[in-house]
Amino acid sequence: MIIRSLETEGFVWGISGMRFSDIGERSLISKITEVLGGLEHDDCAVVELDGDYLVVTTDMLHRETDFPDQATPWQIGWMSAAVNLSDIAAMGAEPLGVLIASGIPPETDLEFVEEIFEGIRDCVKAHGTEVLGGDTDAHRELTICGTALGRVSRERILRRRGARPGDLLCTTGSLGGAGAGLKALKIGRIDLARRLLEPCPRVREGIALAGTGAVTAMMDNSDGLALSLHDLAEAGGTGFLVECERIPIAEEVRAIAESDDEALEMVLRAGGDFELLLTVREDMIDDARKACELTVIGRAVETGIWLERDGSRIPISRRGYEHGS
Amino acid sequence: MIIRSLETEGFVWGISGMRFSDIGERSLISKITEVLGGLEHDDCAVVELDGDYLVVTTDMLHRETDFPDQATPWQIGWMSAAVNLSDIAAMGAEPLGVLIASGIPPETDLEFVEEIFEGIRDCVKAHGTEVLGGDTDAHRELTICGTALGRVSRERILRRRGARPGDLLCTTGSLGGAGAGLKALKIGRIDLARRLLEPCPRVREGIALAGTGAVTAMMDNSDGLALSLHDLAEAGGTGFLVECERIPIAEEVRAIAESDDEALEMVLRAGGDFELLLTVREDMIDDARKACELTVIGRAVETGIWLERDGSRIPISRRGYEHGS
Repeated sequence: MIIRSLETEGFVWGISGMRFSDIGERSLISKITEVLGGLEHDDCAVVELDGDYLVVTTDMLHRETDFPDQATPWQIGWMSAAVNLSDIAAMGAEPLGVLIASGIPPETDLEFVEEIFEGIRDCVKAHGTEVLGGDTDAHRELTICGTALGRVSRERILRRRGARPGDLLCTTGSLGGAGAGLKALKIGRIDLARRLLEPCPRVREGIALAGTGAVTAMMDNSDGLALSLHDLAEAGGTGFLVECERIPIAEEVRAIAESDDEALEMVLRAGGDFELLLTVREDMIDDARKACELTVIGRAVETGIWLERDGSRIPISRRGYEHGS
Repeated sequence: MIIRSLETEGFVWGISGMRFSDIGERSLISKITEVLGGLEHDDCAVVELDGDYLVVTTDMLHRETDFPDQATPWQIGWMSAAVNLSDIAAMGAEPLGVLIASGIPPETDLEFVEEIFEGIRDCVKAHGTEVLGGDTDAHRELTICGTALGRVSRERILRRRGARPGDLLCTTGSLGGAGAGLKALKIGRIDLARRLLEPCPRVREGIALAGTGAVTAMMDNSDGLALSLHDLAEAGGTGFLVECERIPIAEEVRAIAESDDEALEMVLRAGGDFELLLTVREDMIDDARKACELTVIGRAVETGIWLERDGSRIPISRRGYEHGS
């Protein structure tokens, strides 16, 4: 039997970096939703399988919009696998494999293609899985569409919804590294752009966290902390309060941001960090900490998305921290 | 546990309509193979799951190379789902669902997008399955990358390899309809192009055939009969003899081909038919026929790919029937 989600009728849809001139992102999603049925917000679609769940996700990346000019072909390959594995990680699932459909411009150098696939191979191997298959054809613009499959037991699966007021809001790793990387590329500091160009999906952390029973909701923060908080809040019907001074700011941010405000923007607004954002039952935070390194950055509240900074609460909009608001 | 194929180490890779100026299709595949490990030829990748197999396939289609100008948006959507479901059908598997990653040009009309997704929805519903999820972003050229998942028991799964000399070579439906459609579009006879624009994946037939135990090998003929015969022969280590007068020629071919040679070219060379090409144990052909309508078009032989026509045997090259050879 297939379920499109665990409780509601709905499918999972991602929107990445859309800039639709006339359409507008929201009307496009609502149109797709109208045609296909209800929409479920999660990192992966879920299929029931003998008491376990199969989770599956797909993500299409394009040369112009997704791969910075400075990315090496190996990094292009790595990124293409990593973004999909991160969605598997966000469900607490173990990856079963990756498929890669690639559209390659006919004039592409053979070594360039080889290095892309080396990057894909190295990324899947580093995360304990493999390339199962794929499809290649000629395309005007380099386009790589990855699909990742994973498996997780019913008891362990983690969803975006599930947070309750009082739960601790946590993140893996540090935040803002990808945002700092974007600025680094602009000013020629490629040494500070590695977090952006070689994102590390938190596969082991996701599996370990799912095994604790302490986590109530989880997603990856690939669209930046602000948007992710709103998505998590919407899915779970809660709000969140983030304590500014607890945010684990990435080293690259400290190296390159010219002010605290700029650093905060890198954390909140820039996409590409691929950390896990999760809520943990307060009485079980020690169990969660045994699974992997975590930083508590705030907690789930009844309503609103708030940043507590220098003693005052500022609302965080979907677009991030807004100056003067 | 994951296996990349049933017996050998290998992944599944498709190449569709490549025209690589400098690279060349073969060197590109061999490069990908070198990087990723052995290559297995099949319509889907296979993952072991509790005694069953999960089969999964992905296929990226582009506006310029894959969708004829005359295709309606509904047909674009239908085709995008159908090509993937056909690969599931070829393994004898039951579809579990489809994911759709789409790159949509920002200037696209909202109704156009709506109709694409209606086509996708109608195709998956018509074949007993559903859209599980997807991803949408802005892209210069309309690009739709579908992924289909299916499930089949270990006893039933059908592969490209498995044919033995003496087995009967069979096809579902009729052949050449897509090739005739290509010509129809060129000469403004869109009424004869429906088979090309609305391919019908043989999902029910594939499941029923897999249940008979009579089928020894199967694939879809989406690249035309000639190439498919070579692929089936290569996978199974046999040859094939096709009897020209037994080929079920599509109505559209009869309506539009100007000679028998042209009709044969449409059958052998043109891609897009999406019928199932299979081999059946001779003593069980009646069982196979109970599963679905089949036409016996020849048999597996020790070696070589041959067309028997007017009493003589002509070799069929990978590119199809060659005049005067």
